[in-house]
Amino acid sequence: MQDSIFTPAVAGMQASAIREIFKMLGVPGMISFAAGIPAPELFPAKEWAEINHKILTERASGALVYGTTEGYVPLREYIKEQCTKKGIYKEDVDELIITSGAQQAIDLSAKVLINPGDGVICEEPSFIGSLNSFRSYGAKLYGAAIEDDGICIEEVERYLKKEKNIKFIYTITTFQNPSGVTMSLEKRKKLLALAQQYGVFILEDNPYGELRFRGESVPAIKSMDTKGTVIYAGTYSKTLAPGLRVGYISARKDIVDRVTVVKQVNDVHTPVLNQMMVHEYVTNYDFDAHIEKCAKIYGERCDLMLAEMDKHFPKECTYTRPEGGIFILCTLPKGTDTKVLMQKAIEKKVAFVPGATFMLDLDQPSNLFRLNFSVTTPESITKGIAILGEVIKEYLQNL
Amino acid sequence: MQDSIFTPAVAGMQASAIREIFKMLGVPGMISFAAGIPAPELFPAKEWAEINHKILTERASGALVYGTTEGYVPLREYIKEQCTKKGIYKEDVDELIITSGAQQAIDLSAKVLINPGDGVICEEPSFIGSLNSFRSYGAKLYGAAIEDDGICIEEVERYLKKEKNIKFIYTITTFQNPSGVTMSLEKRKKLLALAQQYGVFILEDNPYGELRFRGESVPAIKSMDTKGTVIYAGTYSKTLAPGLRVGYISARKDIVDRVTVVKQVNDVHTPVLNQMMVHEYVTNYDFDAHIEKCAKIYGERCDLMLAEMDKHFPKECTYTRPEGGIFILCTLPKGTDTKVLMQKAIEKKVAFVPGATFMLDLDQPSNLFRLNFSVTTPESITKGIAILGEVIKEYLQNL
Repeated sequence: MQDSIFTPAVAGMQASAIREIFKMLGVPGMISFAAGIPAPELFPAKEWAEINHKILTERASGALVYGTTEGYVPLREYIKEQCTKKGIYKEDVDELIITSGAQQAIDLSAKVLINPGDGVICEEPSFIGSLNSFRSYGAKLYGAAIEDDGICIEEVERYLKKEKNIKFIYTITTFQNPSGVTMSLEKRKKLLALAQQYGVFILEDNPYGELRFRGESVPAIKSMDTKGTVIYAGTYSKTLAPGLRVGYISARKDIVDRVTVVKQVNDVHTPVLNQMMVHEYVTNYDFDAHIEKCAKIYGERCDLMLAEMDKHFPKECTYTRPEGGIFILCTLPKGTDTKVLMQKAIEKKVAFVPGATFMLDLDQPSNLFRLNFSVTTPESITKGIAILGEVIKEYLQNL
Repeated sequence: MQDSIFTPAVAGMQASAIREIFKMLGVPGMISFAAGIPAPELFPAKEWAEINHKILTERASGALVYGTTEGYVPLREYIKEQCTKKGIYKEDVDELIITSGAQQAIDLSAKVLINPGDGVICEEPSFIGSLNSFRSYGAKLYGAAIEDDGICIEEVERYLKKEKNIKFIYTITTFQNPSGVTMSLEKRKKLLALAQQYGVFILEDNPYGELRFRGESVPAIKSMDTKGTVIYAGTYSKTLAPGLRVGYISARKDIVDRVTVVKQVNDVHTPVLNQMMVHEYVTNYDFDAHIEKCAKIYGERCDLMLAEMDKHFPKECTYTRPEGGIFILCTLPKGTDTKVLMQKAIEKKVAFVPGATFMLDLDQPSNLFRLNFSVTTPESITKGIAILGEVIKEYLQNL
């Protein structure tokens, strides 16, 4: 690698395969279950137009000038208040910084903590964007399996006992990407206790948690933490609009202090206009009603998709039954390769994301694949799942 | 440093002293020459309101959904076209990516290139935000003095000869921050030849270049480069609005490819709305006329400031006479400390940025200080410079 002009960590990085798949989605008639986004028709577009008109006629220069790295004060105060209610911000020990989406929250946390060779325990499968961020700072990744009630605690404990380089555990606690699984309360408590026992941090990423359409909400690990163990990343990308790039970190003051100096040299600050837009929306419109409406529609789409899968998928294909979020994870028998399956599905104009994309070893075949239900119309869900069922059956028969 | 939970590079970083100074600027009646921003009253606010209304009524979901990491295609095409005209983008060898301001352009370039211990030659004094970015990846910095026609070539050559770890030379070629100095064509050619001779890159940062109010424009080093030596960072922060955070990199394809995978894990993409706003402005309004108007006003303010300085500053204080940009750099006799001077000036309600902020060793006293002329009214310039002249005289007399 030393022949490369690039740093070893960066030289080895692969562009997200998901983005490569996206290039195929432009084909007319393609039914895509490959997305990872909220439904654009649910964006409060009319409200955004009103809000922007107000901001740019009343406070244009404030919206367009440099802002502070920590974030636009009224939005920061609002988020602190909301997080205080959920126990994920504690004024005496925590600080809060607004980031350019949760992706930046993850990336800046990684940058301040990871020395090359440091270890990160993550769920496997997990979100490629975070895994690649850790890799870009030279982290060594250790994957712990996802079970129906979240990360496999025994595997986490085994890594913590054996490996001396672990810096933090990365988890998407609720409606995990790609599995849709939510970590149980019991496991959250155990994970926190383990992290504290071994003196490692937990990076808790929660972009989907508010999109619950079934079951009871489970408190964030951060809310149970009294020792500054948990770094919590939140975002408005999945509830309001991903393109605005507004997220945040709530964590120990000294960690947010270092994240702040690093963000200052990364992008100076998150655009003020975008932060003002979010602040105007959450304070002047009914944000709770908006989330409820989105969750209801996603729940209907999820239920429809599961019902169609029950009808059309062969019994060898099992899948998660999420209580919220935007993803279902499917498992085919061992030895199958969902990259091959994807090629066949694409020929029939149905797209999904093969599991290899979410694994530590991107080159190994995976028997998993991810379906998204948030952006597809009911008609397309019905049609696409029927086609996909046929493709799977045919693939399995010809193995 | 190994006691710290943070990486050594990040643990040692200091927050920008400029931002600390900004906290004092809220004092009523304070005349600030400390800014580093374009004049907010020159922002095309009415146009932004029109533009946003148009975008959010006609294309809201496109503006609010995830975008590609490389940037919003129409804006990227526009910038490529503009850069092609200036010779700073060559289609056969270069690629172009839109970044969240020039700061991110600098930071991502640093991330892909700098291994801990790698050397960066920079102008001294230089922009703290870039120096801190390099530091955050563990770079060792080598400062070469700024002369009236730009960086001291002999010092650069001495470093290149002696140090084997140099990765790139960082330069703000035109209307440099903080000096206001423009590198001569001759020096640009020499610097490029040296970089190519020693096999190092040049990171050419050009946020102020378009704000010329006097003299003839000098071509970018990138435009003379046929070997992929120069990474060029541009931005709309100083011409349109800093708060939008829209900048770009034009560089060799393989470098932009690595920057793209790193940006993907940093913030996924620059907000699409912000990119659309810039694109609408530059294609539907008279951008050239806007720049001309801004440059004219900055030129008037610069001339007024220089005239008042000629009148009120003691002859021991020398200063640059910029042909554009937004800064003048002042030099007091050796042994003086402009941090002490600043305290005295603040008491008289005039603020500037002391030179230590721009030096490699932030703790050493500096005899330099930076004045900004872009955001202050003519009345305040006249009043503030007269006061500052008195403060300087008094400080020098009591040494």
